[in-house]
Amino acid sequence: MQLRRILIDVLKPHDPSIIVYAEKLAALKCVDGVNILVVEIDDKTESIGVTIEGGSLNFNSIEKVIEKLGGSIHSVDMVSAGSHVVEAASEESG
Amino acid sequence: MQLRRILIDVLKPHDPSIIVYAEKLAALKCVDGVNILVVEIDDKTESIGVTIEGGSLNFNSIEKVIEKLGGSIHSVDMVSAGSHVVEAASEESG
Amino acid sequence: MQLRRILIDVLKPHDPSIIVYAEKLAALKCVDGVNILVVEIDDKTESIGVTIEGGSLNFNSIEKVIEKLGGSIHSVDMVSAGSHVVEAASEESG
Amino acid sequence: MQLRRILIDVLKPHDPSIIVYAEKLAALKCVDGVNILVVEIDDKTESIGVTIEGGSLNFNSIEKVIEKLGGSIHSVDMVSAGSHVVEAASEESG
Amino acid sequence: MQLRRILIDVLKPHDPSIIVYAEKLAALKCVDGVNILVVEIDDKTESIGVTIEGGSLNFNSIEKVIEKLGGSIHSVDMVSAGSHVVEAASEESG
Amino acid sequence: MQLRRILIDVLKPHDPSIIVYAEKLAALKCVDGVNILVVEIDDKTESIGVTIEGGSLNFNSIEKVIEKLGGSIHSVDMVSAGSHVVEAASEESG
Amino acid sequence: MQLRRILIDVLKPHDPSIIVYAEKLAALKCVDGVNILVVEIDDKTESIGVTIEGGSLNFNSIEKVIEKLGGSIHSVDMVSAGSHVVEAASEESG
Repeated sequence: MQLRRILIDVLKPHDPSIIVYAEKLAALKCVDGVNILVVEIDDKTESIGVTIEGGSLNFNSIEKVIEKLGGSIHSVDMVSAGSHVVEAASEESG
Repeated sequence: MQLRRILIDVLKPHDPSIIVYAEKLAALKCVDGVNILVVEIDDKTESIGVTIEGGSLNFNSIEKVIEKLGGSIHSVDMVSAGSHVVEAASEESG
Repeated sequence: MQLRRILIDVLKPHDPSIIVYAEKLAALKCVDGVNILVVEIDDKTESIGVTIEGGSLNFNSIEKVIEKLGGSIHSVDMVSAGSHVVEAASEESG
Repeated sequence: MQLRRILIDVLKPHDPSIIVYAEKLAALKCVDGVNILVVEIDDKTESIGVTIEGGSLNFNSIEKVIEKLGGSIHSVDMVSAGSHVVEAASEESG
Repeated sequence: MQLRRILIDVLKPHDPSIIVYAEKLAALKCVDGVNILVVEIDDKTESIGVTIEGGSLNFNSIEKVIEKLGGSIHSVDMVSAGSHVVEAASEESG
Repeated sequence: MQLRRILIDVLKPHDPSIIVYAEKLAALKCVDGVNILVVEIDDKTESIGVTIEGGSLNFNSIEKVIEKLGGSIHSVDMVSAGSHVVEAASEESG
Repeated sequence: MQLRRILIDVLKPHDPSIIVYAEKLAALKCVDGVNILVVEIDDKTESIGVTIEGGSLNFNSIEKVIEKLGGSIHSVDMVSAGSHVVEAASEESG
């Protein structure tokens, strides 16, 4: 079934910037939109959170774009799949 | 009566990834959508929170998919059943 | 006047699961929907928060279902009654 | 002018339950809906927060119902009156 | 230009109650709705937060009602004026 | 391009009150609405947060009104400009 | 693909004010709206958070405007690209 939304934690050199990452990922046919948030900046690298949405995401092509730009996927932290996007239910009441 | 939403706590080896879990669960006929959140990562396993929504969820088939992928259901933390999805009422005011 | 929503604190043995509780409660004629949240898990028992909504809830039949399944109502923590569901007003401003 | 919403702090013996309070208050002609939240449980009494909404609430008849059931109004903590319900403005920005 | 919403901090004796304050203020021609919240209760007095909304509030008539009931305006903590009600902007980001 | 919203920090003597400030600012042609929040009250002065919205705000005329009333602009803390009002993006995730 | 929203951290001298920055940035053809928030004020400089939205933002022209006004981009903290604006997914549940 279709992968609708994915949140991945990526480690990348400072260059190219997250603007390039966002533009290249958004250019993928399977991708509707991308949000990139800088989570931590170190001396030579930065850790970024990449949220990608689409009707049917192709993880392999996403991974390829990221690696081609010099980044590496550290972890996949959240995914949504199915005919509609499901939010994570909270274990807290109301 | 119909089970509409369920939140389960699953322990799994790192492989296969949560992408595979989400795709396989979303492929079930009774499932409309799935959200998987990584809660904790250990050396060989990870703990994930799986939220599943559907018109009438079949818990047995959900459990089978998870076990077939090598995961085990640690607990069922929340369920909603009935003609509409009820949110947990808060014991806090306003 | 009609009881519209109720939040009850139930103590139950681990078995049957909250899935069974939700399905049996949602099967009551007076019930539109049920949400069950696991609040605390002990060695032999668990404490659950049960939110039930309906057009005119019958507390006796709800209590019977819970007791038949081996649970006991520890307390009724919130109720709403009337022609529409009223949320608890907050004593905090805005 | 019409009293639209009121939040009262009531001290009551455990019996009758808040379900009876909610039903009796909701049965008043001036009342559209009632929410009762248990705030504190002591040995012989409990403190409850009662939110009542209506087109034009009659405080005397509300007070009578509560006293007839054995409860006593400890304080009136919030009221709204006028042609529409006004929420409390916050002294915090945005 | 029109004063649309005002939040005032009032010190009053316990009697008359905030219900009377709300009803008298809501009875003013310029007032659409009133919310009164009890902020602090002391031995002989209480401090209340009074939020008043209207198309074009007349502060003098509001002040007169409060003083006639034995209360005194301690401070005006928030006002909105203009052709529409503006919320306070936050200095915190999104 | 048009200035749509502005948040300014103003220091003023207690007199005239924020009601007068709000009315005078809202009377400016370029202003649609004003919100004033008292942030801190000192012996002789008070610090207020003034949020002003309009289709095309004229900062000079705003400043003139404030200075004429005896206040001084301590800082401009937030501005929005453009064809629509943009909220500040959060550096925190969702 | 189109850059839709960007959050940049800019260091600038106190003069010109953020009003000028907002007006100049909003005047760019690619920009629909700008929000500027003062994050920290130092002796000679201030740190500001600039959120810019548009159908297809041109980062170079944005950078030029900022540098021409004497500011320097310290970091790009968030970007959104694609056919619709994606919010950052939270790693926290619901």
